[in-house]
Amino acid sequence: MLKLHTYFRSSAAFRVRIALNLKQLDYTAVPVHLLRDGGEQHQPAYMQLNPSALLPTLEDGTLVIAQSLAILEYLDETYPLPPLMPVDAPGRARVRALALSIACDIHPLNNLRVLRYLKTDLDIGEERRNEWYRHWVKIGFITLERLLAGAPATAAFCHGAAPTLADCCLVPQVLNAQRMNCPLHDYPVLMRIHETCMGLDAFSRAAPDRQPDAQ
Amino acid sequence: MLKLHTYFRSSAAFRVRIALNLKQLDYTAVPVHLLRDGGEQHQPAYMQLNPSALLPTLEDGTLVIAQSLAILEYLDETYPLPPLMPVDAPGRARVRALALSIACDIHPLNNLRVLRYLKTDLDIGEERRNEWYRHWVKIGFITLERLLAGAPATAAFCHGAAPTLADCCLVPQVLNAQRMNCPLHDYPVLMRIHETCMGLDAFSRAAPDRQPDAQ
Repeated sequence: MLKLHTYFRSSAAFRVRIALNLKQLDYTAVPVHLLRDGGEQHQPAYMQLNPSALLPTLEDGTLVIAQSLAILEYLDETYPLPPLMPVDAPGRARVRALALSIACDIHPLNNLRVLRYLKTDLDIGEERRNEWYRHWVKIGFITLERLLAGAPATAAFCHGAAPTLADCCLVPQVLNAQRMNCPLHDYPVLMRIHETCMGLDAFSRAAPDRQPDAQ
Repeated sequence: MLKLHTYFRSSAAFRVRIALNLKQLDYTAVPVHLLRDGGEQHQPAYMQLNPSALLPTLEDGTLVIAQSLAILEYLDETYPLPPLMPVDAPGRARVRALALSIACDIHPLNNLRVLRYLKTDLDIGEERRNEWYRHWVKIGFITLERLLAGAPATAAFCHGAAPTLADCCLVPQVLNAQRMNCPLHDYPVLMRIHETCMGLDAFSRAAPDRQPDAQ
């Protein structure tokens, strides 16, 4: 029995929703509203489960797992079909490096708690906050485009002919960038892969606007 | 033939140096000075290898791998002894979640390029920059202490009786925090594990002040 603590706009939760759909795993979505009542992620019941007060958290029976990439790897080890990782160590390293380029180098700088710190503690104003956001997306997407465009392993998806962990991370980050009006014309390979992914039901059904808690 | 592009103070490179030492793998250290000449990581030869302009990069023969956690997983898959990951999926998920709590939730907010953006683009002054630094360490270490202190799997190390990927990430983050004078008395389990690690040659020999490029 899988239970995902999620918020429709959390791009880390979005990564896991994609993987669950790709593997055709049924799960119960438990919405954690990041903005309501000072943020439901700070409530004791959730903090007990995940002391980081971040999303997502996966429960698989009595097992509780935090961190979206740890959850993705767990799902791939425990529910192996279809695989979301290549079988060869070099391929696995490449997929992980692509995923981490997003999960470490872009997303942590632009998530809610950081934007809130920039607003409240540093009081830098909306325009400079948006510049901050777009800056890290730009730096990160330039890197990703180079990694993808130059590589023989890049195909319909980031690595080969089927989705991997890298695609699970890419799509939520592109949707975030679109929502923040980041210019995306300089990343043709990245955007081509994004469109291919969004053409699949497993990806589109995981999107923020398709979640029950988006209402 | 292993080659590590490293900088003595890069805590992401430090993670990999620890793993290489634990596995007793010989490697050539190629220093990339992050501050000299506008940052050697921006020079074309390095950008060709790693377009993110971040450290570390590992070369294993003709294979090039970016992202410290991707490198750690690759080393563990390719040079399995001693293992740096548990064999069971729940244990692996826990180790990855601990490592990612550092690699995604603390370190990306406090690395050189971000501190530089805060200084140059946002011009927030040294005191507020230090507050920013200590804030993310504090939030992250409170989480880690709760994850470690409450868990039966925590032992001499973060997970069991031998070092794992989690310890490879923990030690560099604690050394950074010490260098920035972050208060650490509220994290007794975390600090106890840190001291245990630093008592091992593989960890202490990987420390910044023991690197040839620290001179």
